[in-house]
Amino acid sequence: MQTSPFLGELIGTIVLILLGDGVVANVVLSQTKGHNAGWIVITAGWSFAVTIGIFVAKAFGSIDAHLSPAVTIAFAVATDDYSHVIPYITAQMIGAFIGAVLVWLHHLPHWAVTDDKAAKLATFCNTPAIRSTGSNLTSEAMATIVLILGLAGISSKHLGELAIGVGPYLVGVLVWSIGLSLGGPTGYAINPARDLGPRIAHAVLPIPNKGPSGWNYAWVPVLGPIIGAVVGGLLIRWYAL
Amino acid sequence: MQTSPFLGELIGTIVLILLGDGVVANVVLSQTKGHNAGWIVITAGWSFAVTIGIFVAKAFGSIDAHLSPAVTIAFAVATDDYSHVIPYITAQMIGAFIGAVLVWLHHLPHWAVTDDKAAKLATFCNTPAIRSTGSNLTSEAMATIVLILGLAGISSKHLGELAIGVGPYLVGVLVWSIGLSLGGPTGYAINPARDLGPRIAHAVLPIPNKGPSGWNYAWVPVLGPIIGAVVGGLLIRWYAL
Amino acid sequence: MQTSPFLGELIGTIVLILLGDGVVANVVLSQTKGHNAGWIVITAGWSFAVTIGIFVAKAFGSIDAHLSPAVTIAFAVATDDYSHVIPYITAQMIGAFIGAVLVWLHHLPHWAVTDDKAAKLATFCNTPAIRSTGSNLTSEAMATIVLILGLAGISSKHLGELAIGVGPYLVGVLVWSIGLSLGGPTGYAINPARDLGPRIAHAVLPIPNKGPSGWNYAWVPVLGPIIGAVVGGLLIRWYAL
Amino acid sequence: MQTSPFLGELIGTIVLILLGDGVVANVVLSQTKGHNAGWIVITAGWSFAVTIGIFVAKAFGSIDAHLSPAVTIAFAVATDDYSHVIPYITAQMIGAFIGAVLVWLHHLPHWAVTDDKAAKLATFCNTPAIRSTGSNLTSEAMATIVLILGLAGISSKHLGELAIGVGPYLVGVLVWSIGLSLGGPTGYAINPARDLGPRIAHAVLPIPNKGPSGWNYAWVPVLGPIIGAVVGGLLIRWYAL
Repeated sequence: MQTSPFLGELIGTIVLILLGDGVVANVVLSQTKGHNAGWIVITAGWSFAVTIGIFVAKAFGSIDAHLSPAVTIAFAVATDDYSHVIPYITAQMIGAFIGAVLVWLHHLPHWAVTDDKAAKLATFCNTPAIRSTGSNLTSEAMATIVLILGLAGISSKHLGELAIGVGPYLVGVLVWSIGLSLGGPTGYAINPARDLGPRIAHAVLPIPNKGPSGWNYAWVPVLGPIIGAVVGGLLIRWYAL
Repeated sequence: MQTSPFLGELIGTIVLILLGDGVVANVVLSQTKGHNAGWIVITAGWSFAVTIGIFVAKAFGSIDAHLSPAVTIAFAVATDDYSHVIPYITAQMIGAFIGAVLVWLHHLPHWAVTDDKAAKLATFCNTPAIRSTGSNLTSEAMATIVLILGLAGISSKHLGELAIGVGPYLVGVLVWSIGLSLGGPTGYAINPARDLGPRIAHAVLPIPNKGPSGWNYAWVPVLGPIIGAVVGGLLIRWYAL
Repeated sequence: MQTSPFLGELIGTIVLILLGDGVVANVVLSQTKGHNAGWIVITAGWSFAVTIGIFVAKAFGSIDAHLSPAVTIAFAVATDDYSHVIPYITAQMIGAFIGAVLVWLHHLPHWAVTDDKAAKLATFCNTPAIRSTGSNLTSEAMATIVLILGLAGISSKHLGELAIGVGPYLVGVLVWSIGLSLGGPTGYAINPARDLGPRIAHAVLPIPNKGPSGWNYAWVPVLGPIIGAVVGGLLIRWYAL
Repeated sequence: MQTSPFLGELIGTIVLILLGDGVVANVVLSQTKGHNAGWIVITAGWSFAVTIGIFVAKAFGSIDAHLSPAVTIAFAVATDDYSHVIPYITAQMIGAFIGAVLVWLHHLPHWAVTDDKAAKLATFCNTPAIRSTGSNLTSEAMATIVLILGLAGISSKHLGELAIGVGPYLVGVLVWSIGLSLGGPTGYAINPARDLGPRIAHAVLPIPNKGPSGWNYAWVPVLGPIIGAVVGGLLIRWYAL
């Protein structure tokens, strides 16, 4: 089997979600080594999940290493080239689902000992701090615009160079920044695949004593980042960032 | 519309304040994901806010990426070239105000549920730990001198190269350092726009049950950093750092 | 005496374990400066232990700087060259034992004042959060696969270049990521020498009021990482990562 | 006035101690913004203090940027060139004293409100967690050996290149690592000037309600690091690291 952009996006997103949802599992599930370790651990964990996901995506053939439909859409809008959109998003969605299954497997003994149903759901996907549809949508869109503009700034030509040298580390810092600073109201999905794929996994996996999968909120962390991606992509295009 | 140094300073400062005041909002407002996450989160958040603000400023056309009147003044003093002072500071002040408005918008549902008026003000601007005008002014000036000397050290030619490669990350580390080590007495404004712009936003925004905007202290985080900037700029000039 | 790959692996692994088990000692032993400092300190400490261990290994002649039988095995499988396996693993095992002895020496006054026998054992080696052999083995194998794929991604040619420039820092970030995100169930040995060498030290050192050395679990953090190393090595080989 | 190695060591050490002792002041003095922020803040603060100190030392003319008699002695032993020892250590001692005075000035309103005399002393210099002269001396020597070997690893030619590119950041990571992992028993002086200069400042400054300056311990954080520096320097020399 050959490496390819599809395979890279697939395996990179698996690693992204395994590490990203993994840190949440470590912090919120009961009897883990990192139980209740706090927001700095959550946000550092997601930062490095992005960095390592990009490195692995690159190793398996994706120089772009988007790992997010929001990034794919933004750069498609920016370049007016939509040829990658369907295959990349397909790989990202499958990868996000598989990654969440691996998080479940990795923490297998901890599901039964965790009583908190909200904690179990939080391992997979987002719930807003305060439910307020318009504000939650705005927060996700704003955070995604910062993501896209930050990516444009980190990458001098902003297409395909993020996976070189210290680029993946800096992209991790960007996501760390967004988590620390803009993650308060909604938990910063900023990536539709990151929320939807694991939410499906939560719904279908045999998790002991699980609660509902929060489907009434599920469209917000999909639509919000897409809105942010389109706005961010247009800004890149109009300003030739 | 074209990218330009003015636009870069404007949008870079918007992002700086959105991320910088954003992390304070996340930590001090009620019911956020990062509530009470501590000083490491505050200082890391401001560090990365600087890094990402510089990257975005660069993308929109500001190679200097000062994002602070203190930095602009210091390098004007250092080079005896004051041509950028007025436009840069104008952009930085407008950007800081807009950034603070976006922080308010991003955390919209959290203002009404937060009772602590000091927390609401802290999201926007600084209040000293112990009010002592002379000491507070000295602390802000000293912290700003460290900022300017650090910038001179990070940037080999120290004018316009901070936005290249890992430079913005190192500048973020510099600000992280200042926050951890010198932020204790005053909360390290070290940037007049960072304090004054958001303070105006606090005064004019419709924040439920807000307290006073602390105008009797407002001149300290403006004048202290300016004093430090002039001293730091003279040191760069005299020693040709 | 000349520097050599053997000496580099030996001294690099000594430093790795001195710093890695050292941070655990600092957090879990009584009356230390870092007592109860939390998961962010544990994982940051192990991350930097890896980074500094690699730098020191390099200084003493090991350009590979594996510091782990899992990494040595993975790259042997990847390249079908097993010539380094025996000498490297010998050096790593001896180094891990010596490193653990130095941790004991460094914290000499703290053993007698620490009552918690599990804390004393945790300074040396791993105990699972929830004992479940199959799951613990799976967790160690999965975390090691992420380690190997991450190494392949960080190093463009992935053999012998990890010790150059910022490579050791990025490898540290990789291990930080694994600790934050995948360390919850087993404490992330991901390195057979890291667990077995110090466990032997725990067994033989004159530690006041120590408990058993957990030998019934000892094979899991050896076999799990080896399984992960073989799988990771095969992935590198099949995909020519 | 010209920049020079002496001036660079002087001002670099001032900044090192201002930032390093500054973070301790922020964490241990009463009513600061970072009060009780924990070990991750202390160790991060000292890490970045080293990084920024090196950058500033470089800007003022010290390419070596040792900022520590231990580093100066180690490299003198390594190269058999003792010509820099007296001037560098003189600059470092004066700088450490001035830096401590600035920490006192920066936190001026906080001394009177802090009751804890040990906290006030800890802002300036080290007290061991458990007093045990032999062990404390051993701990300081071991930590300094790791420092010197790490410096040799980070710098390919290990003399005068630490101040280039990301070198100062990596040296900061090295000191962060030592703090997290080896700082538990003695608080990691690893630099005679860092302890003695500020201890003299504690003795002479008009600090309200201060306790004794701990002179009976003062020789340990001087002699321990010097022993470690000589051993580390000999290792570099013998092995041509």
